[in-house]
Amino acid sequence: MDQTQAQQWLATAVEEARAGLAEGGIPIGAALYGADGALLGRGHNLRVQDGDPSMHAETSAFRNAGRQRSYRGTTMVTTLSPCWYCSGLVRQFGISRVIVGEAQTFHGGHDWLAEHGVEIVVLDDAGCVAMMKDFIAAKPELWNEDIGE
Amino acid sequence: MDQTQAQQWLATAVEEARAGLAEGGIPIGAALYGADGALLGRGHNLRVQDGDPSMHAETSAFRNAGRQRSYRGTTMVTTLSPCWYCSGLVRQFGISRVIVGEAQTFHGGHDWLAEHGVEIVVLDDAGCVAMMKDFIAAKPELWNEDIGE
Repeated sequence: MDQTQAQQWLATAVEEARAGLAEGGIPIGAALYGADGALLGRGHNLRVQDGDPSMHAETSAFRNAGRQRSYRGTTMVTTLSPCWYCSGLVRQFGISRVIVGEAQTFHGGHDWLAEHGVEIVVLDDAGCVAMMKDFIAAKPELWNEDIGE
Repeated sequence: MDQTQAQQWLATAVEEARAGLAEGGIPIGAALYGADGALLGRGHNLRVQDGDPSMHAETSAFRNAGRQRSYRGTTMVTTLSPCWYCSGLVRQFGISRVIVGEAQTFHGGHDWLAEHGVEIVVLDDAGCVAMMKDFIAAKPELWNEDIGE
């Protein structure tokens, strides 16, 4: 896909991640874009803020997009490689593409998604890497809790 | 595992599914039990009731269990074979066992979970099968929406 477009969409996810960090939460953000490029939903991890372990960035963006009859042609953009939970979400609902800010600090299920026909774009964004590295160094227990380790 | 125990836990999930049906929702229920057998959380599908596509039965039970430091030894019991989204949840958080009410009307990711070390118990419960068959026959579009088909 167009790299400028991918970077623009990633910027939305980064805004979400920063909002989460400012709230005292885990700085991971995501957004779901429609086949026509319209923003359907955006969100961030809410484990700390809502005491809700089910709200990862991707599931939060998915929830905020509300009920959709089809996810064909949609793109999930996320600051961090999606964990198995969020990868399962993408596969089950047939989300067509995932843009990953970075997969250095955490390598989730994006290879598995690629094997199952999902278009994967890994941007290796330095800002995303720095944000997660700083967070993991500062709050390792919270990070491990969020990925069940 | 002990079949009587499995049936007792399934009864909790069935209660949740029936509550969802009574609310006009999709009749799938689940519960998360701790390693010591204590009920940690229970829930049901909330797509219709909350307009929330992220709340499948298993994710609802997981959310209602709140933040947990570890899922080692826990059991997710669900009336229906878990979809990829909910299977990903189980794998990511290291839930040790899944009790499946039935896998006839929908075959989700439980074989994949078994390959990855999760203990799977499929009960083939006639009541669960009948509940889903009746629902799918009555509201096929809602069912397809819930599994992204």
